[in-house]
This record gives sequence, C-alpha cells and structure tokens, in this order.
Amino acid sequence: MKNIYFTPGPSQLYPTVPDHIKVALKQEILSISHRSQRFEQIFEDTVDNLRQLMNIPPSHEIFFLSSSLEAMERILQNAVEKSSFHLVNGPFSDKWYRFSLDMGKEAKKIEVPFGEGFDLDKINISDKCEIICLTQNETGTGVMLPVDDIHRLKLRYPNKLLAVDIVSSVPYPAIDFSLVDIAFFSAQKGFGLPAGLSVLIVADKVLKKSSGTYHSFTVLSKFFRNNQTPETPNVLGIYLLGKVCQDMLKIGRKRIVDDIDKKAAMIYEFFEKNKRFTPFVKDKKFRSKTTVVLQSTKNENISQIVEFLGKKGMIVGKGYGKFKENQIRIANFPAHSVFSVRKLLVSL
Amino acid sequence: MKNIYFTPGPSQLYPTVPDHIKVALKQEILSISHRSQRFEQIFEDTVDNLRQLMNIPPSHEIFFLSSSLEAMERILQNAVEKSSFHLVNGPFSDKWYRFSLDMGKEAKKIEVPFGEGFDLDKINISDKCEIICLTQNETGTGVMLPVDDIHRLKLRYPNKLLAVDIVSSVPYPAIDFSLVDIAFFSAQKGFGLPAGLSVLIVADKVLKKSSGTYHSFTVLSKFFRNNQTPETPNVLGIYLLGKVCQDMLKIGRKRIVDDIDKKAAMIYEFFEKNKRFTPFVKDKKFRSKTTVVLQSTKNENISQIVEFLGKKGMIVGKGYGKFKENQIRIANFPAHSVFSVRKLLVSL
Repeated sequence: MKNIYFTPGPSQLYPTVPDHIKVALKQEILSISHRSQRFEQIFEDTVDNLRQLMNIPPSHEIFFLSSSLEAMERILQNAVEKSSFHLVNGPFSDKWYRFSLDMGKEAKKIEVPFGEGFDLDKINISDKCEIICLTQNETGTGVMLPVDDIHRLKLRYPNKLLAVDIVSSVPYPAIDFSLVDIAFFSAQKGFGLPAGLSVLIVADKVLKKSSGTYHSFTVLSKFFRNNQTPETPNVLGIYLLGKVCQDMLKIGRKRIVDDIDKKAAMIYEFFEKNKRFTPFVKDKKFRSKTTVVLQSTKNENISQIVEFLGKKGMIVGKGYGKFKENQIRIANFPAHSVFSVRKLLVSL
Repeated sequence: MKNIYFTPGPSQLYPTVPDHIKVALKQEILSISHRSQRFEQIFEDTVDNLRQLMNIPPSHEIFFLSSSLEAMERILQNAVEKSSFHLVNGPFSDKWYRFSLDMGKEAKKIEVPFGEGFDLDKINISDKCEIICLTQNETGTGVMLPVDDIHRLKLRYPNKLLAVDIVSSVPYPAIDFSLVDIAFFSAQKGFGLPAGLSVLIVADKVLKKSSGTYHSFTVLSKFFRNNQTPETPNVLGIYLLGKVCQDMLKIGRKRIVDDIDKKAAMIYEFFEKNKRFTPFVKDKKFRSKTTVVLQSTKNENISQIVEFLGKKGMIVGKGYGKFKENQIRIANFPAHSVFSVRKLLVSL
C-alpha cells in the first residue's frame, strides 16, 4: 500500500516517523523503564523541543495524557470548581461543554450554528464562570478562530482562565502563552504521529487548582518536574513527538506555517470555482487552514467520490456526524506536501 | 544494542513485536481512521484473540484504556458509589486504596506488611463495601495471590463486586470470569508490548453502574459494541496486542504457563542457595511466578550488581520505592526464554 491520508487524524505520518520508529526499535526504547535516566532524557528532550517549536515559556508545564478527550476532562476536573463557559460551534466544543455537565459543573455556553465562528470581541462571559473553554480549530466543521482574537478575549477577561483546544491546528497557530493559560493537542494530527498521546500545556498559576488521582495537576506537576509521568506512559509516542519537533525545528516553524498557508490557499481557491464542492465555512476569516471541510453543492452523497479517491490512493475524511453523507474533510498538515495536495485537487 | 530486559515492565518485547510493528507501518495502520472499517476489524480481532487466550466469556466487555492507573481510577469512578474495600500488601494495592480516598469515597482496607500475602479464606469484608479490590500480583513486592483463593473469596461474598489487578501476571493466572467481575492489565508487561495501553475487562452486570464522561462505563460500552473506542485510541497498541495474542494462541496458553512455571522454579531454586540474594517473599505459596523480588542477604547496596549485569547486557529492575537500594526485581514473562534466564542466573 502507498496511500496518502488526508483524513483529519489519524492522518498521513510525518515523513520521518517510520525511520524514527525503526531507530526506537534498534535502540530498545520500547523496553526501557519509565523510571530510568534514559527515559528522563527522552522526556526532557521532547519538552525542550516542543517549547522551542511552539514558543512555550517556562511559566507553563507540559503534561502527557492519552487523548484530547482526556485533556478536556482533566482541565474541567482540576481547574473548575463550579462553573465553566464554553464557546460551542461544532461537535468537539459541544463535547467539552457536555463533559462539564456530566461532571456536575454549572456549564454555560454561547452557541452558533456549525460552520460559523465567533466575533470574540463582542462576546460577554458571565461573571461567575471560572474558565473560558474554546476550540481554536473545530475538526468537525473546519472553523478556525484567529489567535489574535483569542488573545484579545483574554485581555478583556484577564481574571478568568482561558483554555484553548488546538488539537487539529497545532503547530500552525502562534499562541502567545502569556495570554493562554491552558492549551492541548493530540499527536496524531498536525505532528503526523501514531495515535495515543495528547499534550496538555498548563500555566503554573493554574496548578494551585488540583483535583483527582494520578492525573491531578499536583501529581502531574510533581512528576513533570522529574521528567517523568505518574503512570507508565506511551514512551514511543513521547520519543517520536520529540524527534518530529526536532525535524520541524530544522525546517523552521515559519516555513511550516508558510507551507500550510500556501496549500490552504491552493485548496480554497480550487473549491471557490469547483462545481461539486464548496467550502462549508462561508466567512473566509474563519476558514481553517489545517482542516478543510467541503460541502457537496448538490447535496449529493459523497460516498462514491470518497471511494473513487480511495482507489486512486487518496484517503479523505467523510463529514462529521450529521454531515457524514454530504461533506468531505481534507487535512492540510505539515505531512501533506504541495505535490500530494495538487494530486488530490486534480482528481476532484 | 542487544540487551535483555528483565525489568518488570516496560520489559523485553515479545519476540514477534518488532516484525508486527514493521508490518503495521507497511500496511499504514498508523494512519487509518479510528472510525474506519479497517480499525473496527482490528479491534474485533484483538478482542476475539484476547477472549480466546484468557477465556473471557461473552458476559464480559473489554475496554481499552491508557494505563493501569487509569483502570484503577475508572473502576472506582464508575462502579463505586460510596465505599470500596482494599487488600493492601504493596505499593500498587496501596495506590488503589489511596485513589479511592482521593475520590472522596469511604475506602476500607486490611493491610499486611510488604512481602506478605493474605489468607483469603479468613478475611472479613465489611458489609457496606460495594467492591473488593485486590492485587493478584504485586509488582512492587513479588507477592502473587493464588487465583483459586480469589475465586473462593468471591463465593463467600457473591453480592459484592470483585475487581482484580492482574497487571503484571497476565497471561499467567487462569481467571474464572464467572467469579471475577472486573480485571485489568497493562500491555507492557506479560504481553511484551510497547507501553501506553491497558485493558479493562468488565462484567455486563457492572455496566449499570456508570459515571463520568468519555470513559464512563456507559460510553465505553456503547463504543465497544461497535468495535470502537470513545477517543482516538492507541491504534498501534490495540493492533499489536491482537497479534501477540494470536502468536500466543499458536503456542498454546498451557505451554506458556508451563514455561513460566519452569523458569520460576529455576529462579527460586537458584536463589534458595544463593549467598547474595534471597527471595523477599518468605511464604512459598505467595511467591510470584512472573515478578521475582530478591533481597540482598547482607543488605548491601545493589547498584553495583545492577550495573555489572547491565554491562553484560542484562537489565534488571531495582527494588520498588523504599526497597530501591537493597532489592532487585526480575520479570519472568513469556518474552523471557529459558536460555536468557539461565544466562542471568549464572551471572549472579
């Protein structure tokens, strides 16, 4: 097989990943103890590389969890005593909101239809909410909120915690961590890694709030400071993340971001003129650079085209949830070359 | 490098694992969607193979989590409304007990010194406890509780749930799932897999009890029935577990168990006569077959011997926690051949 995976995660592996896995096998990294110095060195390297690539300051600690759903849950469990506020515009932001209700918190939300963004400068957050939870890039609908708007929201509400889901946009958004208290993402999307690892970035000042067992912020922080995790973690995932960050640092974040911009422009320009598909997100300001969602113009069932592309070796995602039949989703991650995007577009 | 890892997990990879990983890469399993038919087939195969190997009846569902610490937490979160009962005889059973307290439950325990087992026929469980939590094999101390004793405990308390930690003994213990409501283990121990996956086996009747978000039993069960997981899981881990179960089925569980018995006998006989080390567990009935803990007879610091063995390519574990300086731990998993055990013993 030699397919190209445009699915929004798990997705195409970052090109260096297979070789890193082979080296990991050779160097017996899958057998080393998670309490050994060798593991601590891997942990430290990964944290260092990630800090450098994403400009994460020492004011923030970095925790390794197993999935972004876990990240959503642990944020609410640890950082929210009573009430959370959610900006809901897609299935994942909605899930986060529902988690809060399931956990017995008072969850408030403002909601816009799927496919729309928010005018963050005009949003009012109710006084008693402790945290603002928002999804910077909605994988389900292809809506991306501009990071500058997010930063201004924090400036308007400096006393509330701000938690940002960057699951399917990382490493694209230039987050200013002096204005973002909590952020999280998964390995299997923009970093092109195997699934089963997520990363939670938490400001020191949040760590006073803590609740739970092995993944309370207190316990996570205690182990983080020793370059370890409370549980036996996904050692391979942590190793690979560090290596791919290193590879990306060699290329430079700017070039990676520029490439994503360039490919996104190619894709959206193509679909502005395409007869079968049109971008689901109408407002250009909110069109995601990393996960493009396309709506069938004639509301036709997209199974045939997905199958047709599949036969040509290009795997695209179907629409999320209720949009499964009439939308396709195309990831535009660092692992996707201009060449492969062009190959996809000429087939559509 | 070509070391043999006798560490009690992560440990020596099961011999077929490197090739399975290479096949997974070739077949692009690290890129497939966790909502695709291909993933569902992998999930189903792994569940089927595990059921066959461990004799898990249809009355029990199988959930994939990220670590055994998560399994401990999810059991308490879902299955315990008020009160849990814990048999504490080592660091992991103690951790489970403390999790219950941290979660605000009424946790009761009976405790014996580290290195000792329990006379399960004589234990009295307080009436109001909903669940009995016990650690069949204490990785920290090398104590293994005989499964028949565990089964008889359930017969004495049929109305209480029985949850059994088989983290570091699986696939050795012949659990009778008609008498065990919940069991869990990690991939990186007896199965010789990369770390980052744990398996929670839960009887249908327990599933009525459910609490939480994406890993509530209700949500886990809903996805399980569709051969999926709520979150994007460790796809590689699930794939590899299925493949190693298949490999073990070809050999036959009986032979794997017989081999463990044979190697355990070799190890304990050797240390009965050894001058430097003696088994930490005095009562032969409770000596673990899969994780042997050895105490320095002269209470000497074991760092030197660990280093000496390391230079010879044999990596053993240090003692757990307060025993770090004076004990070594040797895993005796299916991945450890008679040949490699012999090589280790002649060096001691």
